[in-house]
Amino acid sequence: MARQLYELCGKDPEILFSPYCWRSRMALAHKGLEFETVPWRFTETDRLAFANWEKVPVLVDGEKVVADSWAIAQYLDDAYPDAPSLLHGRPASYRFITSWNDATILANVVRLIVSDIPAVLNEEAKPYFIKSRAARFGMPLDEVTAGRDDRLPAFRASLQPLRMTFASQRYLGGEQPDYADYIVFGGFMWARCVSPLQLLEDNDPVREWLERMLDLHDGMGRRARISGAEATPR
Amino acid sequence: MARQLYELCGKDPEILFSPYCWRSRMALAHKGLEFETVPWRFTETDRLAFANWEKVPVLVDGEKVVADSWAIAQYLDDAYPDAPSLLHGRPASYRFITSWNDATILANVVRLIVSDIPAVLNEEAKPYFIKSRAARFGMPLDEVTAGRDDRLPAFRASLQPLRMTFASQRYLGGEQPDYADYIVFGGFMWARCVSPLQLLEDNDPVREWLERMLDLHDGMGRRARISGAEATPR
Repeated sequence: MARQLYELCGKDPEILFSPYCWRSRMALAHKGLEFETVPWRFTETDRLAFANWEKVPVLVDGEKVVADSWAIAQYLDDAYPDAPSLLHGRPASYRFITSWNDATILANVVRLIVSDIPAVLNEEAKPYFIKSRAARFGMPLDEVTAGRDDRLPAFRASLQPLRMTFASQRYLGGEQPDYADYIVFGGFMWARCVSPLQLLEDNDPVREWLERMLDLHDGMGRRARISGAEATPR
Repeated sequence: MARQLYELCGKDPEILFSPYCWRSRMALAHKGLEFETVPWRFTETDRLAFANWEKVPVLVDGEKVVADSWAIAQYLDDAYPDAPSLLHGRPASYRFITSWNDATILANVVRLIVSDIPAVLNEEAKPYFIKSRAARFGMPLDEVTAGRDDRLPAFRASLQPLRMTFASQRYLGGEQPDYADYIVFGGFMWARCVSPLQLLEDNDPVREWLERMLDLHDGMGRRARISGAEATPR
Protein backbone atom coordinates (compact mmCIF):
# COMPACT_ATOMS: atom_id res chain seq x y z
CA MET A 1 0.00 0.00 0.00
CA ALA A 2 1.32 3.42 -0.90
CA ARG A 3 2.20 5.73 1.96
CA GLN A 4 -0.70 8.13 2.56
CA LEU A 5 -1.00 11.49 4.27
CA TYR A 6 -4.51 12.69 5.05
CA GLU A 7 -4.38 16.44 4.51
CA LEU A 8 -6.82 19.31 4.81
CA CYS A 9 -7.85 20.62 1.41
CA GLY A 10 -10.29 23.06 -0.11
CA LYS A 11 -13.04 22.40 -2.59
CA ASP A 12 -10.14 22.04 -5.00
CA PRO A 13 -8.26 19.02 -3.63
CA GLU A 14 -5.00 20.59 -4.76
CA ILE A 15 -5.39 23.50 -2.35
CA LEU A 16 -3.68 22.22 0.79
CA PHE A 17 -3.67 24.91 3.44
CA SER A 18 -3.30 23.48 6.94
CA PRO A 19 -0.15 24.73 8.70
CA TYR A 20 0.05 21.43 10.57
CA CYS A 21 -0.27 19.34 7.42
CA TRP A 22 2.51 21.39 5.84
CA ARG A 23 4.77 20.40 8.72
CA SER A 24 4.17 16.75 7.90
CA ARG A 25 4.41 17.18 4.10
CA MET A 26 7.77 18.84 4.45
CA ALA A 27 8.89 16.29 7.04
CA LEU A 28 8.11 13.42 4.65
CA ALA A 29 9.97 15.17 1.84
CA HIS A 30 12.92 15.88 4.17
CA LYS A 31 13.09 12.15 4.82
CA GLY A 32 12.97 11.43 1.10
CA LEU A 33 9.76 9.44 1.52
CA GLU A 34 7.18 9.35 -1.23
CA PHE A 35 3.55 9.65 -0.27
CA GLU A 36 0.18 10.38 -1.75
CA THR A 37 -2.21 12.94 -0.35
CA VAL A 38 -5.64 11.78 0.71
CA PRO A 39 -7.77 14.93 0.51
CA TRP A 40 -9.76 15.57 3.67
CA ARG A 41 -12.19 18.36 4.38
CA PHE A 42 -13.60 19.94 7.53
CA THR A 43 -16.66 17.97 8.78
CA GLU A 44 -15.34 14.63 7.49
CA THR A 45 -14.44 13.37 10.94
CA ASP A 46 -15.98 9.96 10.24
CA ARG A 47 -13.29 9.30 7.69
CA LEU A 48 -10.63 9.51 10.40
CA ALA A 49 -12.32 7.06 12.75
CA PHE A 50 -9.76 4.39 11.77
CA ALA A 51 -7.08 6.62 13.34
CA ASN A 52 -9.13 7.27 16.47
CA TRP A 53 -8.55 10.95 15.82
CA GLU A 54 -10.59 13.90 14.55
CA LYS A 55 -8.10 16.10 12.76
CA VAL A 56 -5.45 15.97 10.09
CA PRO A 57 -2.64 15.29 9.43
CA VAL A 58 -2.90 11.54 9.76
CA LEU A 59 -0.15 9.38 8.28
CA VAL A 60 -0.74 5.83 7.11
CA ASP A 61 2.59 4.10 6.60
CA GLY A 62 1.98 0.44 5.80
CA GLU A 63 0.41 -1.04 8.92
CA LYS A 64 1.21 2.01 10.99
CA VAL A 65 -1.27 4.85 11.58
CA VAL A 66 0.09 8.05 13.17
CA ALA A 67 -2.08 11.06 13.95
CA ASP A 68 -0.89 14.57 14.83
CA SER A 69 2.02 16.40 13.22
CA TRP A 70 4.20 16.25 16.32
CA ALA A 71 3.78 12.49 16.63
CA ILE A 72 4.39 12.10 12.89
CA ALA A 73 7.73 13.92 13.10
CA GLN A 74 8.90 11.72 15.95
CA TYR A 75 7.63 8.60 14.21
CA LEU A 76 9.50 9.43 11.00
CA ASP A 77 12.78 9.90 12.86
CA ASP A 78 12.27 6.64 14.74
CA ALA A 79 11.16 4.61 11.73
CA TYR A 80 13.68 6.03 9.26
CA PRO A 81 16.82 6.69 11.30
CA ASP A 82 19.12 6.59 8.25
CA ALA A 83 17.32 9.42 6.46
CA PRO A 84 18.19 13.04 7.37
CA SER A 85 17.03 13.79 10.88
CA LEU A 86 14.15 16.11 11.71
CA LEU A 87 14.51 16.40 15.48
CA HIS A 88 18.09 15.17 15.97
CA GLY A 89 17.09 12.91 18.81
CA ARG A 90 16.02 15.92 20.88
CA PRO A 91 12.26 16.45 20.38
CA ALA A 92 12.01 18.35 23.66
CA SER A 93 14.36 20.98 22.23
CA TYR A 94 11.79 21.76 19.53
CA ARG A 95 8.96 22.47 21.95
CA PHE A 96 9.92 26.07 22.54
CA ILE A 97 9.93 27.10 18.90
CA THR A 98 6.67 25.25 18.42
CA SER A 99 5.16 27.22 21.27
CA TRP A 100 6.59 30.48 19.98
CA ASN A 101 5.30 29.73 16.49
CA ASP A 102 1.82 28.88 17.72
CA ALA A 103 1.59 31.90 20.05
CA THR A 104 3.19 34.41 17.69
CA ILE A 105 2.78 33.34 14.09
CA LEU A 106 -0.35 31.19 14.00
CA ALA A 107 -2.27 33.30 16.51
CA ASN A 108 -1.60 36.45 14.48
CA VAL A 109 -1.84 35.00 10.98
CA VAL A 110 -5.32 33.68 11.64
CA ARG A 111 -6.45 37.23 12.47
CA LEU A 112 -4.96 38.42 9.18
CA ILE A 113 -6.37 35.76 6.83
CA VAL A 114 -9.33 33.93 8.36
CA SER A 115 -11.92 35.76 6.25
CA ASP A 116 -10.16 34.54 3.08
CA ILE A 117 -10.59 30.89 3.96
CA PRO A 118 -14.32 30.31 3.25
CA ALA A 119 -13.76 31.08 -0.44
CA VAL A 120 -11.57 28.01 -0.86
CA LEU A 121 -13.84 25.61 1.03
CA ASN A 122 -16.39 23.14 -0.34
CA GLU A 123 -20.07 23.90 0.24
CA GLU A 124 -20.43 21.58 3.20
CA ALA A 125 -17.38 22.85 5.06
CA LYS A 126 -18.12 26.53 4.52
CA PRO A 127 -20.97 27.04 7.02
CA TYR A 128 -19.20 24.85 9.59
CA PHE A 129 -16.04 26.92 9.29
CA ILE A 130 -17.74 30.31 9.32
CA LYS A 131 -19.87 29.46 12.32
CA SER A 132 -17.17 27.80 14.42
CA ARG A 133 -14.54 30.48 13.78
CA ALA A 134 -16.95 33.36 14.30
CA ALA A 135 -17.86 31.76 17.62
CA ARG A 136 -14.18 31.45 18.54
CA PHE A 137 -13.49 35.12 17.84
CA GLY A 138 -16.86 36.41 19.01
CA MET A 139 -17.43 38.31 15.76
CA PRO A 140 -17.97 37.79 12.03
CA LEU A 141 -14.82 36.81 10.14
CA ASP A 142 -14.76 40.03 8.15
CA GLU A 143 -14.51 41.94 11.39
CA VAL A 144 -11.66 39.74 12.60
CA THR A 145 -9.53 40.72 9.62
CA ALA A 146 -10.78 44.31 9.31
CA GLY A 147 -7.92 46.78 9.21
CA ARG A 148 -5.41 44.02 8.69
CA ASP A 149 -3.01 46.17 6.72
CA ASP A 150 -2.63 48.32 9.80
CA ARG A 151 -1.66 45.27 11.83
CA LEU A 152 1.00 44.03 9.46
CA PRO A 153 3.79 46.19 10.91
CA ALA A 154 3.26 44.73 14.40
CA PHE A 155 3.17 41.21 12.96
CA ARG A 156 6.38 41.80 11.06
CA ALA A 157 8.02 43.23 14.17
CA SER A 158 7.13 40.09 16.10
CA LEU A 159 9.32 38.09 13.70
CA GLN A 160 12.48 39.82 14.91
CA PRO A 161 13.89 36.66 16.57
CA LEU A 162 13.77 34.95 13.16
CA ARG A 163 15.53 37.89 11.54
CA MET A 164 18.27 37.85 14.18
CA THR A 165 18.77 34.12 13.68
CA PHE A 166 19.03 34.41 9.90
CA ALA A 167 21.74 37.02 10.36
CA SER A 168 24.10 34.18 11.22
CA GLN A 169 22.67 31.06 9.58
CA ARG A 170 20.56 30.08 6.57
CA TYR A 171 17.97 28.00 8.39
CA LEU A 172 16.68 27.60 11.92
CA GLY A 173 18.36 24.19 11.82
CA GLY A 174 21.69 25.70 10.73
CA GLU A 175 23.18 25.21 7.28
CA GLN A 176 20.39 22.76 6.50
CA PRO A 177 16.71 22.96 7.44
CA ASP A 178 15.23 20.75 10.11
CA TYR A 179 11.85 20.40 11.78
CA ALA A 180 12.08 23.88 13.34
CA ASP A 181 12.04 25.33 9.83
CA TYR A 182 9.05 23.24 8.83
CA ILE A 183 7.09 24.32 11.90
CA VAL A 184 7.49 27.99 11.04
CA PHE A 185 7.12 27.44 7.31
CA GLY A 186 3.69 25.86 7.84
CA GLY A 187 2.19 29.11 9.06
CA PHE A 188 3.44 30.99 6.03
CA MET A 189 2.14 28.31 3.64
CA TRP A 190 -1.26 28.54 5.29
CA ALA A 191 -1.40 32.24 4.41
CA ARG A 192 0.14 31.79 0.96
CA CYS A 193 -2.40 29.18 -0.13
CA VAL A 194 -5.55 31.04 0.88
CA SER A 195 -4.86 34.77 0.98
CA PRO A 196 -3.57 37.51 -1.32
CA LEU A 197 -2.15 39.36 1.67
CA GLN A 198 1.62 39.77 1.48
CA LEU A 199 2.78 39.06 5.00
CA LEU A 200 6.43 39.96 4.46
CA GLU A 201 8.18 42.84 2.77
CA ASP A 202 10.45 41.99 -0.13
CA ASN A 203 13.69 42.98 1.57
CA ASP A 204 12.96 41.14 4.81
CA PRO A 205 15.51 38.42 5.73
CA VAL A 206 12.53 36.31 6.78
CA ARG A 207 11.25 36.62 3.23
CA GLU A 208 14.63 35.49 1.92
CA TRP A 209 14.47 32.44 4.18
CA LEU A 210 10.90 31.80 2.99
CA GLU A 211 12.07 31.85 -0.62
CA ARG A 212 14.72 29.25 0.23
CA MET A 213 12.07 27.16 1.94
CA LEU A 214 9.76 27.36 -1.06
CA ASP A 215 12.55 25.91 -3.20
CA LEU A 216 13.27 22.92 -0.99
CA HIS A 217 12.42 19.39 -2.05
CA ASP A 218 11.92 20.18 -5.72
CA GLY A 219 9.93 23.31 -4.94
CA MET A 220 7.22 21.51 -3.00
CA GLY A 221 6.04 24.76 -1.43
CA ARG A 222 6.46 26.92 -4.51
CA ARG A 223 4.51 24.47 -6.67
CA ALA A 224 1.58 24.29 -4.25
CA ARG A 225 -1.66 25.55 -5.69
CA ILE A 226 -2.90 28.81 -4.25
CA SER A 227 -6.39 30.28 -4.04
CA GLY A 228 -7.50 32.02 -7.22
CA ALA A 229 -4.61 30.64 -9.26
CA GLU A 230 -4.17 27.56 -11.42
CA ALA A 231 -0.94 26.24 -9.96
CA THR A 232 0.83 29.42 -11.01
CA PRO A 233 3.79 30.19 -8.78
CA ARG A 234 3.97 33.71 -7.41
CA MET B 1 46.36 27.33 37.46
CA ALA B 2 42.79 27.28 38.66
CA ARG B 3 40.07 27.70 36.05
CA GLN B 4 38.94 31.33 36.05
CA LEU B 5 35.83 33.11 34.84
CA TYR B 6 36.03 36.87 34.52
CA GLU B 7 32.59 38.10 35.55
CA LEU B 8 30.88 41.45 35.82
CA CYS B 9 30.40 42.45 39.44
CA GLY B 10 29.24 45.40 41.46
CA LYS B 11 31.13 47.37 44.09
CA ASP B 12 30.55 44.24 46.17
CA PRO B 13 32.47 41.58 44.25
CA GLU B 14 29.84 39.03 45.28
CA ILE B 15 27.11 40.79 43.30
CA LEU B 16 27.35 39.15 39.90
CA PHE B 17 24.66 40.51 37.64
CA SER B 18 25.51 40.07 33.97
CA PRO B 19 22.98 37.90 32.12
CA TYR B 20 25.76 36.70 29.83
CA CYS B 21 28.08 35.79 32.69
CA TRP B 22 25.26 33.83 34.28
CA ARG B 23 25.00 31.75 31.12
CA SER B 24 28.66 30.81 31.48
CA ARG B 25 28.52 30.28 35.28
CA MET B 26 25.65 27.85 34.87
CA ALA B 27 27.32 26.20 31.88
CA LEU B 28 30.46 25.52 33.92
CA ALA B 29 28.38 24.12 36.77
CA HIS B 30 26.39 21.98 34.32
CA LYS B 31 29.67 20.50 33.17
CA GLY B 32 30.70 19.84 36.75
CA LEU B 33 33.74 22.09 36.36
CA GLU B 34 35.08 24.06 39.29
CA PHE B 35 36.13 27.63 38.69
CA GLU B 36 36.91 30.80 40.52
CA THR B 37 35.37 34.16 39.69
CA VAL B 38 37.69 37.00 38.78
CA PRO B 39 35.64 40.12 39.58
CA TRP B 40 35.56 42.59 36.73
CA ARG B 41 33.88 45.98 36.60
CA PHE B 42 32.72 48.27 33.83
CA THR B 43 35.62 50.49 32.59
CA GLU B 44 38.28 47.84 33.31
CA THR B 45 38.75 46.99 29.65
CA ASP B 46 42.55 47.02 30.04
CA ARG B 47 42.34 43.98 32.25
CA LEU B 48 40.85 41.97 29.36
CA ALA B 49 43.56 42.91 26.86
CA PHE B 50 45.09 39.43 27.26
CA ALA B 51 41.88 38.02 25.76
CA ASN B 52 41.79 40.55 22.94
CA TRP B 53 38.24 41.33 24.03
CA GLU B 54 36.45 44.13 25.83
CA LYS B 55 33.62 42.45 27.66
CA VAL B 56 32.95 39.62 30.04
CA PRO B 57 32.54 36.71 30.39
CA VAL B 58 36.04 35.56 29.58
CA LEU B 59 37.07 32.04 30.53
CA VAL B 60 40.66 31.08 31.26
CA ASP B 61 40.99 27.31 31.25
CA GLY B 62 44.64 26.38 31.60
CA GLU B 63 46.36 27.67 28.48
CA LYS B 64 43.05 28.36 26.78
CA VAL B 65 41.37 31.78 26.76
CA VAL B 66 37.78 31.94 25.51
CA ALA B 67 35.80 35.18 25.30
CA ASP B 68 32.02 35.54 24.80
CA SER B 69 29.36 33.35 26.39
CA TRP B 70 28.37 31.70 23.11
CA ALA B 71 31.96 30.69 22.35
CA ILE B 72 32.41 29.51 25.93
CA ALA B 73 29.41 27.16 25.70
CA GLN B 74 30.73 25.63 22.49
CA TYR B 75 34.24 25.38 23.90
CA LEU B 76 33.02 23.57 27.01
CA ASP B 77 31.15 20.98 24.97
CA ASP B 78 34.17 20.46 22.72
CA ALA B 79 36.73 20.33 25.51
CA TYR B 80 34.67 18.22 27.93
CA PRO B 81 32.65 15.87 25.74
CA ASP B 82 32.12 13.33 28.53
CA ALA B 83 30.37 15.81 30.82
CA PRO B 84 26.64 16.50 30.34
CA SER B 85 26.10 18.30 27.08
CA LEU B 86 25.02 21.93 26.81
CA LEU B 87 24.29 22.19 23.08
CA HIS B 88 23.98 18.51 22.13
CA GLY B 89 26.22 18.95 19.11
CA ARG B 90 23.68 21.34 17.56
CA PRO B 91 24.70 24.91 18.44
CA ALA B 92 22.77 26.28 15.47
CA SER B 93 19.57 24.94 17.01
CA TYR B 94 20.10 27.24 20.02
CA ARG B 95 20.34 30.41 17.96
CA PHE B 96 16.62 30.98 17.75
CA ILE B 97 15.98 30.88 21.48
CA THR B 98 19.01 33.11 22.01
CA SER B 99 17.53 35.60 19.57
CA TRP B 100 14.11 35.36 21.15
CA ASN B 101 15.59 35.80 24.62
CA ASP B 102 17.63 38.82 23.59
CA ALA B 103 14.75 40.48 21.71
CA THR B 104 12.03 39.66 24.22
CA ILE B 105 13.48 39.16 27.68
CA LEU B 106 16.69 41.21 27.75
CA ALA B 107 15.27 44.09 25.71
CA ASN B 108 12.31 44.40 28.06
CA VAL B 109 14.02 43.62 31.35
CA VAL B 110 16.54 46.40 30.83
CA ARG B 111 13.67 48.88 30.57
CA LEU B 112 12.28 47.54 33.85
CA ILE B 113 15.46 47.53 35.95
CA VAL B 114 18.16 49.73 34.45
CA SER B 115 17.68 52.52 36.99
CA ASP B 116 18.38 50.06 39.82
CA ILE B 117 21.82 49.16 38.50
CA PRO B 118 23.87 52.27 39.46
CA ALA B 119 23.26 51.58 43.15
CA VAL B 120 25.26 48.35 42.98
CA LEU B 121 28.20 49.79 41.00
CA ASN B 122 31.56 51.00 42.25
CA GLU B 123 32.25 54.72 42.10
CA GLU B 124 34.27 54.57 38.90
CA ALA B 125 31.75 52.50 36.95
CA LYS B 126 28.71 54.50 38.05
CA PRO B 127 29.15 57.64 35.88
CA TYR B 128 30.23 55.52 32.91
CA PHE B 129 27.13 53.36 33.20
CA ILE B 130 24.68 56.20 33.77
CA LYS B 131 26.02 58.23 30.87
CA SER B 132 26.31 55.40 28.35
CA ARG B 133 22.88 53.92 29.10
CA ALA B 134 21.14 57.29 29.16
CA ALA B 135 22.66 57.96 25.74
CA ARG B 136 21.44 54.59 24.48
CA PHE B 137 17.87 55.24 25.62
CA GLY B 138 17.91 58.97 24.92
CA MET B 139 16.65 59.79 28.41
CA PRO B 140 17.68 59.61 32.07
CA LEU B 141 17.51 56.09 33.53
CA ASP B 142 14.70 57.02 35.93
CA GLU B 143 12.58 57.92 32.93
CA VAL B 144 13.38 54.62 31.22
CA THR B 145 11.91 52.66 34.10
CA ALA B 146 9.14 55.12 34.98
CA GLY B 147 5.75 53.43 35.15
CA ARG B 148 7.36 50.01 35.09
CA ASP B 149 4.62 48.38 37.12
CA ASP B 150 2.23 49.24 34.31
CA ARG B 151 4.47 47.46 31.80
CA LEU B 152 4.77 44.24 33.78
CA PRO B 153 1.57 42.68 32.38
CA ALA B 154 2.84 43.07 28.80
CA PHE B 155 6.22 41.65 29.76
CA ARG B 156 4.59 38.69 31.45
CA ALA B 157 2.36 38.11 28.42
CA SER B 158 5.43 37.99 26.18
CA LEU B 159 6.61 34.94 28.10
CA GLN B 160 3.68 32.85 26.86
CA PRO B 161 5.88 30.56 24.70
CA LEU B 162 7.79 29.58 27.84
CA ARG B 163 4.55 28.88 29.68
CA MET B 164 3.29 26.70 26.82
CA THR B 165 6.56 24.77 26.79
CA PHE B 166 6.51 24.15 30.55
CA ALA B 167 3.03 22.70 30.19
CA SER B 168 4.64 19.57 28.76
CA GLN B 169 8.19 19.49 30.11
CA ARG B 170 10.18 20.66 33.14
CA TYR B 171 12.94 22.48 31.30
CA LEU B 172 13.49 23.97 27.86
CA GLY B 173 15.98 21.14 27.36
CA GLY B 174 13.39 18.51 28.36
CA GLU B 175 13.56 16.51 31.59
CA GLN B 176 16.96 18.05 32.27
CA PRO B 177 18.14 21.61 31.68
CA ASP B 178 20.50 22.48 28.88
CA TYR B 179 21.99 25.67 27.48
CA ALA B 180 18.58 26.97 26.37
CA ASP B 181 17.57 27.10 30.03
CA TYR B 182 20.74 28.92 31.01
CA ILE B 183 20.25 31.52 28.29
CA VAL B 184 16.81 32.43 29.57
CA PHE B 185 17.80 32.07 33.22
CA GLY B 186 20.52 34.69 32.77
CA GLY B 187 18.02 37.45 32.14
CA PHE B 188 16.08 36.61 35.27
CA MET B 189 19.25 36.49 37.39
CA TRP B 190 20.22 39.91 36.08
CA ALA B 191 16.96 41.31 37.44
CA ARG B 192 17.08 39.29 40.65
CA CYS B 193 20.55 40.48 41.60
CA VAL B 194 19.99 44.21 41.13
CA SER B 195 16.30 45.00 41.45
CA PRO B 196 13.48 44.57 43.98
CA LEU B 197 10.96 44.36 41.13
CA GLN B 198 9.11 41.03 41.05
CA LEU B 199 9.02 40.15 37.37
CA LEU B 200 6.82 37.08 37.72
CA GLU B 201 3.65 36.33 39.60
CA ASP B 202 3.78 33.56 42.17
CA ASN B 203 1.47 31.20 40.32
CA ASP B 204 3.17 31.59 36.96
CA PRO B 205 4.58 28.35 35.48
CA VAL B 206 7.58 30.42 34.42
CA ARG B 207 8.12 31.25 38.09
CA GLU B 208 7.93 27.55 38.93
CA TRP B 209 10.60 26.84 36.31
CA LEU B 210 12.69 29.70 37.72
CA GLU B 211 12.49 28.18 41.19
CA ARG B 212 13.77 24.88 39.79
CA MET B 213 16.57 26.73 38.04
CA LEU B 214 17.55 28.54 41.24
CA ASP B 215 17.97 25.17 42.95
CA LEU B 216 20.23 23.66 40.28
CA HIS B 217 23.91 22.98 40.96
CA ASP B 218 23.68 23.24 44.73
CA GLY B 219 21.53 26.35 44.53
CA MET B 220 24.09 28.40 42.61
CA GLY B 221 21.42 30.92 41.60
CA ARG B 222 19.56 30.96 44.90
CA ARG B 223 22.75 31.54 46.86
CA ALA B 224 23.84 34.46 44.70
CA ARG B 225 24.08 37.73 46.56
CA ILE B 226 21.45 40.29 45.67
CA SER B 227 21.42 44.05 45.98
CA GLY B 228 20.57 45.30 49.45
CA ALA B 229 20.89 41.87 51.04
CA GLU B 230 23.69 39.97 52.72
CA ALA B 231 23.53 36.73 50.76
CA THR B 232 20.01 36.14 52.05
CA PRO B 233 17.96 33.99 49.71
CA ARG B 234 14.53 35.28 48.86
